[in-house]
Amino acid sequence: MKIQTGSVGIVETKYFSFEEKIRLENGIEFGPVTVAYETYGKLNRAKDNAILVLHALSGDAHAAGYHSSEDKKPGWWDTAIGPGKAFDTDRYFVICSNFLGGCKGTTGPSSINPDTNRPYGIEFPVITVGDMVKVQKKLIDHLGIETLFCAAGGSLGGMQAMQWAIQYPEAVQSAVIIATTTRLSAQNIAFNEVGRNAIVFDPNWNNGDYYNGEVPARGLALARMIAHITYLSEESMHKKFGRRLQDKTKIDFNFDINFQVESYLRHQGKSFVDRFDANSYLFITKAMDYFDLHQKYGSLAHAFKDTNSKFLFLSFSTDWLFPPNELKDTARTLMSLGKEVTYCNIDAPYGHDSFLLEFEHQPKIIKNFLKGVSKEC
Amino acid sequence: MKIQTGSVGIVETKYFSFEEKIRLENGIEFGPVTVAYETYGKLNRAKDNAILVLHALSGDAHAAGYHSSEDKKPGWWDTAIGPGKAFDTDRYFVICSNFLGGCKGTTGPSSINPDTNRPYGIEFPVITVGDMVKVQKKLIDHLGIETLFCAAGGSLGGMQAMQWAIQYPEAVQSAVIIATTTRLSAQNIAFNEVGRNAIVFDPNWNNGDYYNGEVPARGLALARMIAHITYLSEESMHKKFGRRLQDKTKIDFNFDINFQVESYLRHQGKSFVDRFDANSYLFITKAMDYFDLHQKYGSLAHAFKDTNSKFLFLSFSTDWLFPPNELKDTARTLMSLGKEVTYCNIDAPYGHDSFLLEFEHQPKIIKNFLKGVSKEC
Repeated sequence: MKIQTGSVGIVETKYFSFEEKIRLENGIEFGPVTVAYETYGKLNRAKDNAILVLHALSGDAHAAGYHSSEDKKPGWWDTAIGPGKAFDTDRYFVICSNFLGGCKGTTGPSSINPDTNRPYGIEFPVITVGDMVKVQKKLIDHLGIETLFCAAGGSLGGMQAMQWAIQYPEAVQSAVIIATTTRLSAQNIAFNEVGRNAIVFDPNWNNGDYYNGEVPARGLALARMIAHITYLSEESMHKKFGRRLQDKTKIDFNFDINFQVESYLRHQGKSFVDRFDANSYLFITKAMDYFDLHQKYGSLAHAFKDTNSKFLFLSFSTDWLFPPNELKDTARTLMSLGKEVTYCNIDAPYGHDSFLLEFEHQPKIIKNFLKGVSKEC
Repeated sequence: MKIQTGSVGIVETKYFSFEEKIRLENGIEFGPVTVAYETYGKLNRAKDNAILVLHALSGDAHAAGYHSSEDKKPGWWDTAIGPGKAFDTDRYFVICSNFLGGCKGTTGPSSINPDTNRPYGIEFPVITVGDMVKVQKKLIDHLGIETLFCAAGGSLGGMQAMQWAIQYPEAVQSAVIIATTTRLSAQNIAFNEVGRNAIVFDPNWNNGDYYNGEVPARGLALARMIAHITYLSEESMHKKFGRRLQDKTKIDFNFDINFQVESYLRHQGKSFVDRFDANSYLFITKAMDYFDLHQKYGSLAHAFKDTNSKFLFLSFSTDWLFPPNELKDTARTLMSLGKEVTYCNIDAPYGHDSFLLEFEHQPKIIKNFLKGVSKEC
């Protein structure tokens, strides 16, 4: 792999652990915790140029660059993070950490429970987006950063960004909130519930205790396939696959793969199993279902009333998982509170995944928003 | 159960069998076939008042009335079929049959294969909507009906109605085509494929050979749950469930059912298992995936060019499974061919299921359309 111009180059994942327990929203005192994280660019002397990038359901700390020159792909948001890019590493110190409950280096259900010396499995505590953010705050404190220049993310990452602005109002100068929602809809919960059922229905799931045996590969693959459909728009699926056949010229009247879209989905399911833990999938989707800023704080206005951030909200025209109108209404609520808010609905065909795929407008809008925040410092 | 006014009353399912083999689209000669069907109203002397109602994926021949006074529910389209209703049994002789490949009395994968004396299972031939219609034509011939006054159905039923008008142009005077499509989209195929995977991933599926043991209940329930989400609109799910909790006042940080929508979906999945065969689900969804009037006939215009029916197309504003625009375009194509076409997009909040749930406009539109067809006779 030739590392492309504009890349942050070769990076490595770092680890930060803390022994003291933190109080989770469910009342449990939990610890110790290890956090996997990466950083790109340099923290300036004033320590006021840090951007915390928050990842989505299946993401990890590896947001940009390459772990080795052999890597086939760069980090998950490499298009947005690097010299001259939206999150410009020539100006900003970009941090990304795997969240609590994950399976990419940060403590989660697959981690060893020190009380039993076995993986937590379903004994892992049911966590919330607020708990994820609390752990991230520990990391930021550890790095000696008092105030984040920006907290930014799409999808579940956007939920964390909002939660940061609300939970630590003095510590977030700006927030970039993309393709997300202030509370999951009944339809969102329904899709998550079906995915979780697919996992727990797999006999290999074995009540979450599978780390010494076969993993619930079929269940997890199914869960991913279901979710993956919701990440794409009907339009993008039509353009990408239509009714094109896979390696054949006509339908062959059997249950083998007939259409390209079937082949693609099965591949998505299978490859997800190689890189993700089924129990993490259960806990993270549950945290998403529980995310509800309205209920948690009494109302959306009440949730945001003490925030000190400048906000950029971005939605995408074809995102049917988290439809644009909801973020538009959120932006309106914040405006009515007198907050500084920018809202853009970007016309893009890629559905929910647009936050990872739309390169025409999104980077410019983010870049300009961050420049504006800088100027006012 | 008190039988309601306007009901066709107590009815019974009848059976028609033919021994001679029919040639399926895949080239296989298949038979014998038994067809389960019901009729409501009376066939007139001229035998020109017959309406064939076509059911959707999970339907059956029991479209209206009750099998006994103990029944909790009437037939699946009882709201539309009866004295004075849209399909007025005072005027018309309404027929509904379970389609080929089904599991409600008509020959399907759970039927005994006379060559082996065991259920067909996955040895059942892969069938098409055209094959379903071919078997229905046998029934209509058996009943002595040369020309159907109308072929009518929603969803997969609408696909059959179109196929009838195309395959037997002299035998269909009018067609009522509701909430359907002329070809499944990539997204439609994707949802079907995930449902099929859920079934075949269930160890109890046992390569389709489960009729003497445990049925693949979990897989079939999952398939139904996934599909059920696509039948409802986001709006209707929001109104029906929102984020309301099930039998609790606050989230309880565990993996039990938290939200009403979770409880509802699990119930939908479980109750489907009691009434449906997993192999039928595989074969029927495959027939749907293969449905493509454009590809099969070269173009949509070519498909419909020799039809002699008057057409009523109905779509629903919130149907995201088969979005309204597609039927609108179909209606336009037929108009350009000089066919008599009525198209209505009904503003209804219930998503795809509106064809079963919208009672304000749909019945009147159908009734008036059929009256119009009658007058011109």
